[in-house]
Amino acid sequence: MTNAINKIGVFTSGGDSPGMNAAVRSVVRACAYHNIECVGIYRGYEGMIDGDFITMDARSVKGIINKGGTILKSARSKEFRTKEGRAKAHEQLVKAGIDALVVIGGDGSFTGAMIFNQEYGFPVMGIPGTIDNDIFGTSHTLGYDTALNTVVEAIDKIRDTASSHNRLFFVEVMGRDVGHIALNVGIGAGAEEILIPEEDLGLDRLLDSLRRSKQSGKSSSIVVVAEGDKIGKSVFELKDYVDENMSEYEVRVSVLGHMQRGGAPSCFDRVLASRMGVKAVECLLEGKSNFMVGLNNDIIDITPFDQAVKGKSKINMELLRVSDIMSI
Amino acid sequence: MTNAINKIGVFTSGGDSPGMNAAVRSVVRACAYHNIECVGIYRGYEGMIDGDFITMDARSVKGIINKGGTILKSARSKEFRTKEGRAKAHEQLVKAGIDALVVIGGDGSFTGAMIFNQEYGFPVMGIPGTIDNDIFGTSHTLGYDTALNTVVEAIDKIRDTASSHNRLFFVEVMGRDVGHIALNVGIGAGAEEILIPEEDLGLDRLLDSLRRSKQSGKSSSIVVVAEGDKIGKSVFELKDYVDENMSEYEVRVSVLGHMQRGGAPSCFDRVLASRMGVKAVECLLEGKSNFMVGLNNDIIDITPFDQAVKGKSKINMELLRVSDIMSI
Amino acid sequence: MTNAINKIGVFTSGGDSPGMNAAVRSVVRACAYHNIECVGIYRGYEGMIDGDFITMDARSVKGIINKGGTILKSARSKEFRTKEGRAKAHEQLVKAGIDALVVIGGDGSFTGAMIFNQEYGFPVMGIPGTIDNDIFGTSHTLGYDTALNTVVEAIDKIRDTASSHNRLFFVEVMGRDVGHIALNVGIGAGAEEILIPEEDLGLDRLLDSLRRSKQSGKSSSIVVVAEGDKIGKSVFELKDYVDENMSEYEVRVSVLGHMQRGGAPSCFDRVLASRMGVKAVECLLEGKSNFMVGLNNDIIDITPFDQAVKGKSKINMELLRVSDIMSI
Amino acid sequence: MTNAINKIGVFTSGGDSPGMNAAVRSVVRACAYHNIECVGIYRGYEGMIDGDFITMDARSVKGIINKGGTILKSARSKEFRTKEGRAKAHEQLVKAGIDALVVIGGDGSFTGAMIFNQEYGFPVMGIPGTIDNDIFGTSHTLGYDTALNTVVEAIDKIRDTASSHNRLFFVEVMGRDVGHIALNVGIGAGAEEILIPEEDLGLDRLLDSLRRSKQSGKSSSIVVVAEGDKIGKSVFELKDYVDENMSEYEVRVSVLGHMQRGGAPSCFDRVLASRMGVKAVECLLEGKSNFMVGLNNDIIDITPFDQAVKGKSKINMELLRVSDIMSI
Repeated sequence: MTNAINKIGVFTSGGDSPGMNAAVRSVVRACAYHNIECVGIYRGYEGMIDGDFITMDARSVKGIINKGGTILKSARSKEFRTKEGRAKAHEQLVKAGIDALVVIGGDGSFTGAMIFNQEYGFPVMGIPGTIDNDIFGTSHTLGYDTALNTVVEAIDKIRDTASSHNRLFFVEVMGRDVGHIALNVGIGAGAEEILIPEEDLGLDRLLDSLRRSKQSGKSSSIVVVAEGDKIGKSVFELKDYVDENMSEYEVRVSVLGHMQRGGAPSCFDRVLASRMGVKAVECLLEGKSNFMVGLNNDIIDITPFDQAVKGKSKINMELLRVSDIMSI
Repeated sequence: MTNAINKIGVFTSGGDSPGMNAAVRSVVRACAYHNIECVGIYRGYEGMIDGDFITMDARSVKGIINKGGTILKSARSKEFRTKEGRAKAHEQLVKAGIDALVVIGGDGSFTGAMIFNQEYGFPVMGIPGTIDNDIFGTSHTLGYDTALNTVVEAIDKIRDTASSHNRLFFVEVMGRDVGHIALNVGIGAGAEEILIPEEDLGLDRLLDSLRRSKQSGKSSSIVVVAEGDKIGKSVFELKDYVDENMSEYEVRVSVLGHMQRGGAPSCFDRVLASRMGVKAVECLLEGKSNFMVGLNNDIIDITPFDQAVKGKSKINMELLRVSDIMSI
Repeated sequence: MTNAINKIGVFTSGGDSPGMNAAVRSVVRACAYHNIECVGIYRGYEGMIDGDFITMDARSVKGIINKGGTILKSARSKEFRTKEGRAKAHEQLVKAGIDALVVIGGDGSFTGAMIFNQEYGFPVMGIPGTIDNDIFGTSHTLGYDTALNTVVEAIDKIRDTASSHNRLFFVEVMGRDVGHIALNVGIGAGAEEILIPEEDLGLDRLLDSLRRSKQSGKSSSIVVVAEGDKIGKSVFELKDYVDENMSEYEVRVSVLGHMQRGGAPSCFDRVLASRMGVKAVECLLEGKSNFMVGLNNDIIDITPFDQAVKGKSKINMELLRVSDIMSI
Repeated sequence: MTNAINKIGVFTSGGDSPGMNAAVRSVVRACAYHNIECVGIYRGYEGMIDGDFITMDARSVKGIINKGGTILKSARSKEFRTKEGRAKAHEQLVKAGIDALVVIGGDGSFTGAMIFNQEYGFPVMGIPGTIDNDIFGTSHTLGYDTALNTVVEAIDKIRDTASSHNRLFFVEVMGRDVGHIALNVGIGAGAEEILIPEEDLGLDRLLDSLRRSKQSGKSSSIVVVAEGDKIGKSVFELKDYVDENMSEYEVRVSVLGHMQRGGAPSCFDRVLASRMGVKAVECLLEGKSNFMVGLNNDIIDITPFDQAVKGKSKINMELLRVSDIMSI
């Protein structure tokens, strides 16, 4: 592991997020800055197994800092979960002279990296890229800030039509396991209620809240619902429930879906990606391995993969209270 | 009908669309310019029946030209479809001294206006406000241009994630009766296929097209589907069909929904609304009634309500051909 | 000129505008559709002289429909204005087997194409690409609609700060010879006054107008000024003049500058570019030459280069009146 | 100071910034939540002196969370700097029964609040609202995150045209005393160099850097310049200098200006404003006074006014290094 590192491979893995390209750019340019080679690996672990590589220099990544998605493509690889798959991947890396890896992705991708490191002692650093912000060891994952703005802008548009017609909207946003997106966009878009995986509001309290809202003279209401909300009902079921139990509202549903993952990254995500890419490369050059780069209290630091994978990202409970006060 | 007009009532009716506020502003300011009074009527025909009126002067409409939705609110009124409802509405207008009306809405709203005009000889002019562009007598309805941009930007985001994962997306856009939005955003977003109410592509040809697309080396595909597409399948059914009959693609679905109706109007829609509002007021002052204002060959002209309501807005068949060529 | 056409060269020339990439894409794909070859020429006439060519197929232009600027780069070429320069260019085209050209640019670029055609009988078609909309023979040039939205969104932001502080802003927008942008964004952004090359408002009337505006209770004012406004004063000089002659306002200045040229094209510009590219290629295949493709009454047609170059694009005088009424 | 607080006055002061309306909304709703009255004071200290007050309840602030600027208007008051002015202001507050104040603004506004508090013992809390992020005691001021995105989007557009023409652009962004905006947007927009108040790059090194950039094959360059950059040259002077000393570039200049202050706040700024407003009100209710609310390590805390005013906001030097690496 302490051998000199002359060639770094970089890849994106799992669901894409805005800022991944900016992170690829940063890794490539940090390599150029430190006079080592850099190789892009297409389609994550899948491409690693296939030896789908491309040599990258500082100019290869021009014009991508503001592009959504990932120019290296991403994929979920079943084969890499097998010992044989990982052996093939290792062979390809050795053949290409790659000494170390930077993986940009979520906790599934880090788990793969960790196992690969255990089996082959291959140096690897991780950069957290996912809009869900559900990774322990960083206050912000790449793409999260961008997604907040994308979602808030979409709900602003829905609000235009909601308040023109005095309607109630259930808006589903991403977040299977954690309510970061729902909680922040709920406050940012002035939602009446926010349903998240961490807290079971209960259908009765939801109805109470909507009734109070109507009585207080509000002309429309938005309820933001995380995919994995604790009540366990889809937005369509929630609509039906309210339709059956309240006559005050004309209810509508909107599922924002995959557009939440795309778009040009925000300035914050571009800067974060640039900082993280440099850190990942420099950690590898210092002989570090098996860590995820993270942002904590505005400082770029690192967390061991096993902690990042086992730990849980927690929502800020203060925000629940702020949301309650704001929706008075 | 030729009595002097001293006070004009303006209202928005039916589904809201970006540019409605700009049109309200224009009607109000054109009244101020011509030294006549203007009254805003809340919630369309519903508010007319309830006498829910507000006096508006030039300053009442400041800061709204760039706001989505409608500050006058909109609604669909069952009561106005009855003779009694219309009698109440007439009474309220007379009581408030309103001499003429400008209705901003779609063909349902114009039909109501036409009947009201027949029964009471009440002067009324219409401004076409709907994102669907489905009204005869104008090349553009208010909000249509804005919606095209909103949808294209959303599909651009979906494209980011589609091309990062080599996926096929079925994206549902508005358009129950006409394919204007689907056809234009399909070309604008570089869609593989466009399914519209006017043309039955057929499921076999859809599969053929998707297979050809895959073979030609495309990394992802978007199929834009109008709500009222002729195949008669929802995007969810289309996904299932492709899943069963093709293994080449990972298929995803996105229903863009109500966000298509909101947002700040485009420059085009703001200018169009400003022009139409002036025309509507000046037609009333000239003694005209029962016409819809429209844009034709970049000239603001008028079409009798009955033609606007009976006629059919047609898609430009040239665009179908352009779309075919572009998706090679 | 009636020889079979097997290979078309496409290039962008003069100032760039949003939609140029979409037009390049369309030309390339229309060639692929008609089974002829396509060659991209870098840096306009400059690259033609240098033989800076690249073979393009349908896949070469993927992912560019929504990109601002031009992937083929643009330049202004002094050398092409000389007989020797054009001879070199012709030699390069012949050497590369290029049979015909599509030039995307403004009237300077068309003049060059016309002379080249006269000298060498080389088939050429033009596509109008400039944000200024200053070309005769088309109601819309590529990029114009996008620029209107870019400018209106920028002025919306300026309005936020103007109305928070009760300020007067002079905002300079592009338009040296024609006032299309100024006139439309002036209406779209709710400007108090609009200064354009076509009409001399006069400084006295400007002051009158601003005084009236203040008296009518407006909290802020925006005056939109085209670069080539008839008064002949820069926005900085206008500010000084108002500062000296009125104490009612705190005056500020903003020059929007080059950001007006960039950004993702609007849906309208993408569709227009797609239609124009197809038409240009198909005209060449039909043996036509020396025409500019244009949009007129929503139909794609063609205008001889000499008319396009000599003619003058005129503003819609109705808009001046609408602007007056709106700023009451 | 420990008297019960029954009525809170809120106002915005100094330059406006996105998020000010969201903060006003939060203060008003937090008051409603705690069953105390709230009064909006127009035009900052100027309106306080004039007694330009408006009673606000939870519904008064609907629909403003996403609006740029400030509905309460802002102003700089000379009169409040005099003892007489402050006496008048105090009189007006007492007459209106206002017990405490929340001021949203920058350090000038806090200095005024501090002096007022010293003279009259009037309870006051501050919320930092300025796009410059130049206030000690908070990692983020309201509007800063929004401005970063506004500026990065504008430079993205300039980049489109820069790279189409192989140009060098000097882009001036806000920041008289601190380089936060310049540094972050410089990294976010992929700038070649960033000139800030904190570091004197020197003209020679700037030229060196631009020459190296050209040699490395870059097709265009952006140099981001803070208003108060240490070199002490305006972007126009920088252009002239480069024009005289380098022939490799066609140089252009863009001054982004006041549009940087406007626009809908980002999700981050909306949430931050909501959190800060609640904190400010609750501090007053707990008997605290003379503090600024701030965000530190993602926790809302408070800093005494005198520290906030005397202290200096520092840029993150790590970012300078990241910027150097990224522009390789």
